[in-house]
Amino acid sequence: MSLVVVGSVAYDGVETPHGTVDRMLGGAATYISLAASYFTDVKIVAVVGDDFADQDRQLLASRKIDLAGMETVKGGKTFFWKGVYSSDMNDRTTLQTDLNVFADFKPKLPEPYRAAPYLLLGNIQPALQRSVHGQMSGVKFTGGDTMNYWINDFRGELLQTLKTWDFLLINDGEARLLSGEQNLRRAAAKIHQMGPRTLVIKRGEYGAVLFHGGHHFMAPGYLLETVFDPTGAGDCFAGGFMGYLAGHGIRPKEGHMDMAELRRAVIYGSVMGSFCCEKFGVDRFRTLSHDEVEARYQEFKNCTAF
Amino acid sequence: MSLVVVGSVAYDGVETPHGTVDRMLGGAATYISLAASYFTDVKIVAVVGDDFADQDRQLLASRKIDLAGMETVKGGKTFFWKGVYSSDMNDRTTLQTDLNVFADFKPKLPEPYRAAPYLLLGNIQPALQRSVHGQMSGVKFTGGDTMNYWINDFRGELLQTLKTWDFLLINDGEARLLSGEQNLRRAAAKIHQMGPRTLVIKRGEYGAVLFHGGHHFMAPGYLLETVFDPTGAGDCFAGGFMGYLAGHGIRPKEGHMDMAELRRAVIYGSVMGSFCCEKFGVDRFRTLSHDEVEARYQEFKNCTAF
Repeated sequence: MSLVVVGSVAYDGVETPHGTVDRMLGGAATYISLAASYFTDVKIVAVVGDDFADQDRQLLASRKIDLAGMETVKGGKTFFWKGVYSSDMNDRTTLQTDLNVFADFKPKLPEPYRAAPYLLLGNIQPALQRSVHGQMSGVKFTGGDTMNYWINDFRGELLQTLKTWDFLLINDGEARLLSGEQNLRRAAAKIHQMGPRTLVIKRGEYGAVLFHGGHHFMAPGYLLETVFDPTGAGDCFAGGFMGYLAGHGIRPKEGHMDMAELRRAVIYGSVMGSFCCEKFGVDRFRTLSHDEVEARYQEFKNCTAF
Repeated sequence: MSLVVVGSVAYDGVETPHGTVDRMLGGAATYISLAASYFTDVKIVAVVGDDFADQDRQLLASRKIDLAGMETVKGGKTFFWKGVYSSDMNDRTTLQTDLNVFADFKPKLPEPYRAAPYLLLGNIQPALQRSVHGQMSGVKFTGGDTMNYWINDFRGELLQTLKTWDFLLINDGEARLLSGEQNLRRAAAKIHQMGPRTLVIKRGEYGAVLFHGGHHFMAPGYLLETVFDPTGAGDCFAGGFMGYLAGHGIRPKEGHMDMAELRRAVIYGSVMGSFCCEKFGVDRFRTLSHDEVEARYQEFKNCTAF
């Protein structure tokens, strides 16, 4: 079933211990959509400038991602972000952020998007997330991501937005900040009270924890032999997770409390996040096959079962 | 089958966000032995002063730990360590270290210890670890722990010691320091070349990774609702891991390459480490039952299977 993905499409400059790339395709919506496209139909909502390259548009189109909702602003420039990673790649420092056309992003959904049953709201202003949600007519499972900036400075807006979400997918630092609880189980209990019944807390290279219906599921991080560039790994996790649920028509809020399916979705999220790190930017998705995705899922099982 | 455990028995002063204890039973050999005692016969080798309290001796004896190898130095004082934990309890600062009788620790094994098939060498000087190993007559599975200090300043000694070990159980920072590799899979490959065929890398609250026979196994950390005091958790992991192997007579070096048993040993290690954190010091082991251990193992399975 169709998944609508809203968020940034960008150009990134990235420096990791393995090299430097001055300008490459990036942005949360890009990574989410590419990862989700291995599981379901994806419709992207984003904004780019007229500097957005044909070859990048073609990459998204080659994964059958619907680009009707990707607005091009004439004379505008695409969002640009530049950052450098620490030697262990667990921290990064932002060197440059040029919002460009993203500063005035007012997402407007094309008519054929509105009946999609799944909606994944990338990390944008909470009021905009709510406005997109309001444009949907038949959505069955909605949620997304947020970040420290919105949690700290737009808390009221964010809480109003979260009330209507079925799921929230954030990292451990954000979960602690949002809940005011250091312990993740207690943080999860508080976040459930804010609205989302399904919560996934990402822990970077250490994996993720899923909380749903009074249960939790702990997934370790996949151990890569080489991490080239972790940019987008968290977004690919989100794309794999939601892509799997959408592709299989799973809607935990409708009484279909299939914890087993949610667990699989978390593992597919981890799988897609792990592939993302193997090359710079989105490069791994230029060649990644469905068979490789399935093989890594099996490998994950082999490396965690006891 | 019997497991000989060598290492420190100490008194600790600990401050965590949940409270302060000025003086309580501690030390690596204490935690290892208590945890291992749930699975197998344990014989401890250690040194204490005559300030060592009867009630602490009785706690160890109540778990059927053989104390024949625990030497008491008349007029001496027991090793004392004092530290304070960070607010998230992932870091700690040492405030005081009084080696006392531990400074002159020359472990000497009682005759009935020497034929034990399992030997776990806690974190002491590598030459002392080797001397203990040399006193054993029929040992089948040997290994232990080490730390940054020995890796940096006694590297030659340590490498000579590791050559004869079947397994090594260290944390991720130590594995990186020892191997010179940032990536854990590559670190493990280098450490295997130093001797130990079985390697467990502990990652604190994030779990552990086992490397053996070209395979690896990733275990997430057990998510506790409250962590009171993480002191000794890594040692309890070691005790649970080796206790399980010894209790079931599993010796991976003799061709009995049962990765499935090693995986279970890692989970029992995680289980024992998680119990350790639930109360200050060794307090949780005063009441912990075998049924609780089994129940948590099952819970671990329920929270990780997919």
